[in-house]
Amino acid sequence: MSSDPLVVFTPSGKRGHFAVGTPILTAARQLGVDLDSVCGGRGICSKCQITPSYGEFSKHGVTVAADALSEWNSVEERYKSKRGLKEGRRLGCQATVQGDVVIDVPPESQVHRQVVRKAASARVITMDPATRLYFVEVEEPDMHSPTGDLERLERALKEQWDVPAITADLSLLAKLQPVLRKGNWQVTVALHADHRGGTPEVIEIWPGLHEGGLFGLAIDLGSTTIAAHLTDLETGAVIASSGLMNPQIRFGEDLMSRVSYAMMNPGGDKEMTRAVREAINDLTGAIAQEGKIDPKLIVETVFVCNPVMHHLLLGLDPVELGQAPFALATSDSMTLLARDMELSAMNPRAQVYILPCIAGHVGADAAAVALSEEPGKSKDLVLIVDVGTNAEILLGNTERVLACSSPTGPAFEGAQISSGQRAAPGAIERIEINVDTKEPRFRVIGSDVWSDEDGFDEVIATTGITGICGSGIIEAVAEMRIAGLVDPSGLVGSAEQTGTARSVPEGRTHSYLIHDATAEGGPRITVTQGDIRAIQLAKSALYAGARLLMDEMGVERVDRIVLAGAFGAHISTKHAMVLGMIPDAPLNKVSSAGNAAGTGARIALCNIAARAEIERVVREITKVETAIEPRFQEHFVAANAIPHKTDPFPDLAKVVTLPDVSFNTGGADRSGDGGRRRRKRA
Amino acid sequence: MSSDPLVVFTPSGKRGHFAVGTPILTAARQLGVDLDSVCGGRGICSKCQITPSYGEFSKHGVTVAADALSEWNSVEERYKSKRGLKEGRRLGCQATVQGDVVIDVPPESQVHRQVVRKAASARVITMDPATRLYFVEVEEPDMHSPTGDLERLERALKEQWDVPAITADLSLLAKLQPVLRKGNWQVTVALHADHRGGTPEVIEIWPGLHEGGLFGLAIDLGSTTIAAHLTDLETGAVIASSGLMNPQIRFGEDLMSRVSYAMMNPGGDKEMTRAVREAINDLTGAIAQEGKIDPKLIVETVFVCNPVMHHLLLGLDPVELGQAPFALATSDSMTLLARDMELSAMNPRAQVYILPCIAGHVGADAAAVALSEEPGKSKDLVLIVDVGTNAEILLGNTERVLACSSPTGPAFEGAQISSGQRAAPGAIERIEINVDTKEPRFRVIGSDVWSDEDGFDEVIATTGITGICGSGIIEAVAEMRIAGLVDPSGLVGSAEQTGTARSVPEGRTHSYLIHDATAEGGPRITVTQGDIRAIQLAKSALYAGARLLMDEMGVERVDRIVLAGAFGAHISTKHAMVLGMIPDAPLNKVSSAGNAAGTGARIALCNIAARAEIERVVREITKVETAIEPRFQEHFVAANAIPHKTDPFPDLAKVVTLPDVSFNTGGADRSGDGGRRRRKRA
Repeated sequence: MSSDPLVVFTPSGKRGHFAVGTPILTAARQLGVDLDSVCGGRGICSKCQITPSYGEFSKHGVTVAADALSEWNSVEERYKSKRGLKEGRRLGCQATVQGDVVIDVPPESQVHRQVVRKAASARVITMDPATRLYFVEVEEPDMHSPTGDLERLERALKEQWDVPAITADLSLLAKLQPVLRKGNWQVTVALHADHRGGTPEVIEIWPGLHEGGLFGLAIDLGSTTIAAHLTDLETGAVIASSGLMNPQIRFGEDLMSRVSYAMMNPGGDKEMTRAVREAINDLTGAIAQEGKIDPKLIVETVFVCNPVMHHLLLGLDPVELGQAPFALATSDSMTLLARDMELSAMNPRAQVYILPCIAGHVGADAAAVALSEEPGKSKDLVLIVDVGTNAEILLGNTERVLACSSPTGPAFEGAQISSGQRAAPGAIERIEINVDTKEPRFRVIGSDVWSDEDGFDEVIATTGITGICGSGIIEAVAEMRIAGLVDPSGLVGSAEQTGTARSVPEGRTHSYLIHDATAEGGPRITVTQGDIRAIQLAKSALYAGARLLMDEMGVERVDRIVLAGAFGAHISTKHAMVLGMIPDAPLNKVSSAGNAAGTGARIALCNIAARAEIERVVREITKVETAIEPRFQEHFVAANAIPHKTDPFPDLAKVVTLPDVSFNTGGADRSGDGGRRRRKRA
Repeated sequence: MSSDPLVVFTPSGKRGHFAVGTPILTAARQLGVDLDSVCGGRGICSKCQITPSYGEFSKHGVTVAADALSEWNSVEERYKSKRGLKEGRRLGCQATVQGDVVIDVPPESQVHRQVVRKAASARVITMDPATRLYFVEVEEPDMHSPTGDLERLERALKEQWDVPAITADLSLLAKLQPVLRKGNWQVTVALHADHRGGTPEVIEIWPGLHEGGLFGLAIDLGSTTIAAHLTDLETGAVIASSGLMNPQIRFGEDLMSRVSYAMMNPGGDKEMTRAVREAINDLTGAIAQEGKIDPKLIVETVFVCNPVMHHLLLGLDPVELGQAPFALATSDSMTLLARDMELSAMNPRAQVYILPCIAGHVGADAAAVALSEEPGKSKDLVLIVDVGTNAEILLGNTERVLACSSPTGPAFEGAQISSGQRAAPGAIERIEINVDTKEPRFRVIGSDVWSDEDGFDEVIATTGITGICGSGIIEAVAEMRIAGLVDPSGLVGSAEQTGTARSVPEGRTHSYLIHDATAEGGPRITVTQGDIRAIQLAKSALYAGARLLMDEMGVERVDRIVLAGAFGAHISTKHAMVLGMIPDAPLNKVSSAGNAAGTGARIALCNIAARAEIERVVREITKVETAIEPRFQEHFVAANAIPHKTDPFPDLAKVVTLPDVSFNTGGADRSGDGGRRRRKRA
């Protein structure tokens, strides 16, 4: 056994004997302990902070003397007085081994630190981003053995960091010489190393030690909204989140109307590409300002989106996606330069990673949901529904994963609903209707006070009551059905039929009045027959997609259901099931995953192995095409009703029994079109 | 031994037995015989033409019967009637083996055909360009196993051509879908496969079989002129050559004055970059027009240039090249996108290859000369001098190669000479001075008639006599020295000293009058004292560079000398040696290589192995820096004279003995500045 002192690292438990005088950073590297360093042990970056422990450690079989490490030195003192250093911390590159010692590596000193993804789940992202900082000392040029500055930088990275080779584009080369001289031949480079094993590329270079950090954007590019998370690529922390409306909405609310726009208008695809790229530039500027960083420090961006948005983002005409066989120009993942995509707000050399598409109708957003929710690792048969203007649906377990996409339309997002609006303060998001009195109570976004509680006047004064958002309309329709205001066919009853004056006539159909502030000049919020029809269409599409996958899998039941989507987080699972949006399942087996696509984008941003993983997983997913499948149409038609729950599942049965009403009086309009098609009298 | 028929291919001599019915193309492929095919044997590209031989072949041990191949078929008939087919030719993909046969593969059917580089030398370039055409049939999209169009194209190239993988940029992707459909899933792609083994990139795609050819540009980007050769990438033929002045001349005639311009004027480097890129775009357009091709069919370009032009072309500030230690931003070879260099006249995805630089003063042009002249493969010790505004000098043999660059200035190109002009019709290019009468006779570019011959009046009427070009001024100064009109120090004698009225006073110095047409309103062409001084400076720089390399090599003599440069081809080696431009050597050991740098560019354009080769060779060349070497200054000063040839080399002795004159009378101006510095009276 060695007589050299024993060094034990926690939490890894890695240990080894090292000669007296060995820096802790060196010991850590030799043992493969995950201890960060950007400056390579020069005592300037302070990334290698460690906490020595003193005393007796029976667990490790050592007693650590007070002089187990070298004395606090001037480099550490200088750093502490300039930047501050937590009590008990040392710099791993300065403190050297003098005796047996136990060294704790705090999470912030780990390169591959783990980031809790969201408070609600135990899952973590292990930090392993594609782009990292390296501080190097570059040899000065020598006329007698001439080499280029780039070649000497490459050699320095090889010798000091084991980087095999590098590339750099012309714009980086143009700044290389002045930066090297400004830094007096000490520079920090941001190096992007692809998960495909390509030659690492220099994305940015700074004179001396760069301490401004390195950032990435995870962008969920939806048909209706664009959401971005600004992420610190060293810590994994989300330092700002921001979103805006997709400006392409002016060319068409849903994907197919945008494809039509491109078909009908020469150059229309380019117009839409310009619009979405400008929006992303605006969003990038705004989120950088919110996060208080220079947007040029954004060196990586990950996009997830559906296939039409994918093509429009990349400047590819989506026309083929509008007709069978729905051929994508390319389905594989891509790594592109921000500059080549005209993403001018971030670093022009930022690397843009776009997740692979699964099929012409099942995009990178579905892939991101698969990356986040991992149906292929589930022992239970799990149904994952990402609700949006297009619903992405995954069904699977460790055996097999199926995927499809279903065109639900924008109703679930509050669009095409008479009193609908986007989820924003003042929008009704929760609603209950008393089964006996048929009176509603509700809550608006921005407040926890219900409309029948004290203090609601204040809410009205603050946010107002402005409309109904997506989750609100789902609750409203489900509650109307529970209260017997709507029959299984979706028909809204008249005042005589329902016994409440809130059932008001509207043309040849009836609406349910939730809130009337017209006396005070406010809005009159109702759920119309047309609204019910729109929700029926949307929920039928969603349900039919899920059923189609279940048919394909040969099952009648699923073990659990995950509702995802920016909006999925807010849906009441009970109401979704009453409505028949999703197949029946025990309520405690229905969970919400929040914005799973956005989370998938974040995972791919922070961990390159995840990119390789999802590329592999996507190849194994079985794609089911809804658009040409006759059974989809059958399920769609069959799912239109909001049926009697004569044989409800145990869990749901505890909650509701749907009334056996029927408002089909022959004369009433069942078409929901306000009687435009059928003009027979009552 | 097989009882299958024997197939013998000539000229390769490769042979094998093949089953009756095997297409000749298939047999060739299996034997590794170099037989071209773009369409992969579909009978549409006609690249696989072969000539069967009939009769008895004792050399090959076979007798070929008349029915050794299948009968002439309808595919061949259709091709012949549409496009024509030489008598005796068959299509290798249509004709099948029926009996023993001898098949000749004509040169134009070989992929790796050899191109004679220039008539004067036996050297050949073997065609193996980076970019080639591939005709493929792509599987149509299938909704039930969805893949992107790019992925199916990749699969087709893999299955039909063994291409392992491909990449394509966004601009190519944007045209992929319409082209695939227009070609009914048959397309031709131009694929660029790097000599570094990177993933092949799709440069262009055409519906169906592309028959418009594929072209490349070899560009020699000099300080004063830009010369380009438009080359057919399939045959290697140069289909047009063109050149223009480097527009950067307006920022400074020599390299150092351009570097100064960049130093003194913020943004000056960008101005020069813009200017040269625009000139290359103009040149590209012009040469494509001359070659009668669509400039977008130019898919590759190779550049050779000195380091300052290299940086200015790439958009890199050349300031570091203006001061020791003359650090290049990058010295390695580069492959870039035409689009990224704003070379907008050619295909935007054209791949631009730039040869490596040897050192801060020894550029890619010197590397190209090394590639063309191969000093490292010479058993003799060879001195290669590429004469231009900057002279590139190489000295070496199989043991070792040295390189340096010497700032000769533009005098050798006719600039900074009183009657100097660019080589163009009307410029005096050859001159002889009668040793006894001191009378000149001369010839101008555009005519073979000497000035004392019949018919010269016609020359005057056609081209005129407009000035003296670079090779003319070298001859003039050397002839003046031979005729005793100039003494060894370079002083021009007066009429009394030389005994000819052509020695005319010009300020405090004298000039030699070659031609005076002032009476007819024409030019008066003289060689002034200032001209002699300019040539002395230039030739001293050239000589000193060569001597420095000889010192470094430890030799006093070289075995042979190669004069290169667009202009090197026109220099009279005798006069160059009289002048002392180059070290003494037997005249029959001095040869001219023409534009060796341009030839090097053409080789790199046509053969990717040559790129790997020159990258290796450059690393092994020893660079000698003239700018800081005291011995260079010593040689430079010592070389200023045009000395007595008291002990001339045998070969040269036959030609001239230089007169032992001296015009140093004390009062005459020796400074060559017209007496501005020294005003002492005679």
